[in-house]
Amino acid sequence: MTTDVSGCVKKSRGRPKVFDREDALDKAMALFWQHGYEATSLSHLVEATGAKAPTLYAEFTNKEGLFRAVLDRYVARFVSQYEAQLFASSKPLAQALKDYMVAVALCYTSKETPQGCFIITTSSALAASSEKVAEMIRLRHVKQAQTLVTFLAQRQASGELTASCQCSILANYLSCIIQGMSVSAREGASFETLEEIINTALGSLPGIAQ
Amino acid sequence: MTTDVSGCVKKSRGRPKVFDREDALDKAMALFWQHGYEATSLSHLVEATGAKAPTLYAEFTNKEGLFRAVLDRYVARFVSQYEAQLFASSKPLAQALKDYMVAVALCYTSKETPQGCFIITTSSALAASSEKVAEMIRLRHVKQAQTLVTFLAQRQASGELTASCQCSILANYLSCIIQGMSVSAREGASFETLEEIINTALGSLPGIAQ
Repeated sequence: MTTDVSGCVKKSRGRPKVFDREDALDKAMALFWQHGYEATSLSHLVEATGAKAPTLYAEFTNKEGLFRAVLDRYVARFVSQYEAQLFASSKPLAQALKDYMVAVALCYTSKETPQGCFIITTSSALAASSEKVAEMIRLRHVKQAQTLVTFLAQRQASGELTASCQCSILANYLSCIIQGMSVSAREGASFETLEEIINTALGSLPGIAQ
Repeated sequence: MTTDVSGCVKKSRGRPKVFDREDALDKAMALFWQHGYEATSLSHLVEATGAKAPTLYAEFTNKEGLFRAVLDRYVARFVSQYEAQLFASSKPLAQALKDYMVAVALCYTSKETPQGCFIITTSSALAASSEKVAEMIRLRHVKQAQTLVTFLAQRQASGELTASCQCSILANYLSCIIQGMSVSAREGASFETLEEIINTALGSLPGIAQ
């Protein structure tokens, strides 16, 4: 995975002269991803981004606002990439699902970012007191599940899934595997292990029209 | 789920006169399970267990020692219960796996304990600095995976799984679903949703001898 930050003033030891929003978001993302929402303090964020605290406040209002922007950036950088695999319409159903889940597994095991899913990892570590952040994450998960249901319903309409297949149940099953892959990756599972899990899951997927 | 604490001095508003180890472990477990290892402070543990700090130190040495005892207690109270479903040898393979996973799902969605798996939830929220706790959790997970492999290998030897089935891959797949169920339960999935996921996973399990 590469960042698409082009005009970034970085790699110098001093503070960047120009505030690069996307670069700051990527650095904040790495912190939240590794340590969770609560354990990442504003001073950690100031240090990692190289921005002044007043600059971060002006741009994002508070830590919660910064997290919201980071979540949007994660979706744009990663989630959109692998969801695109689902809607490449020329692919057969099984291939589209396989490409989607392999893209997810590559993201979760990439050496360039912390292991696992940013959203699932943050959610798991979240304190009960951070209600607004929990709600942001919950809504994002609902959207991901809806995306899978939309995809499956399209393939059911085209006859690739049997009429009796309940798309929402199949979507919950696939989401469950994706969540499990995030936990496995976080605990050190390799891409190859995740790929074997994907092959096992998709090798005998119910509801595929013969 | 019920606690098997019998000689417990509790329900009074004051501090218990006798230190009840298992009762203290159950109360500490609830805190670690809900809030994670780092976010649970010794003062929280003292308050919840009703024990004096010196009593906790004398019994468990430090927070890490208390966590180790809590982990053992979780395994005895919950993990052993649902793993027993696997080794009730009179059941056919599919039924044994179903009973095991349903017992797991009931534990993860019980209203009497925090949602999800104590071990997976704690692991997900763990800071990189808590290396010894991470190692305890990792070893426990390895043991859980080995239990599944042992179970599957027994059933392969008896001819219920095809000779070509790779037990370790199938065990990783089942572990992945269990991990995903923990994340789903933590985010509010009902027992019924988890049961649908189990039925989907086991309804088309690869390697079952016909």
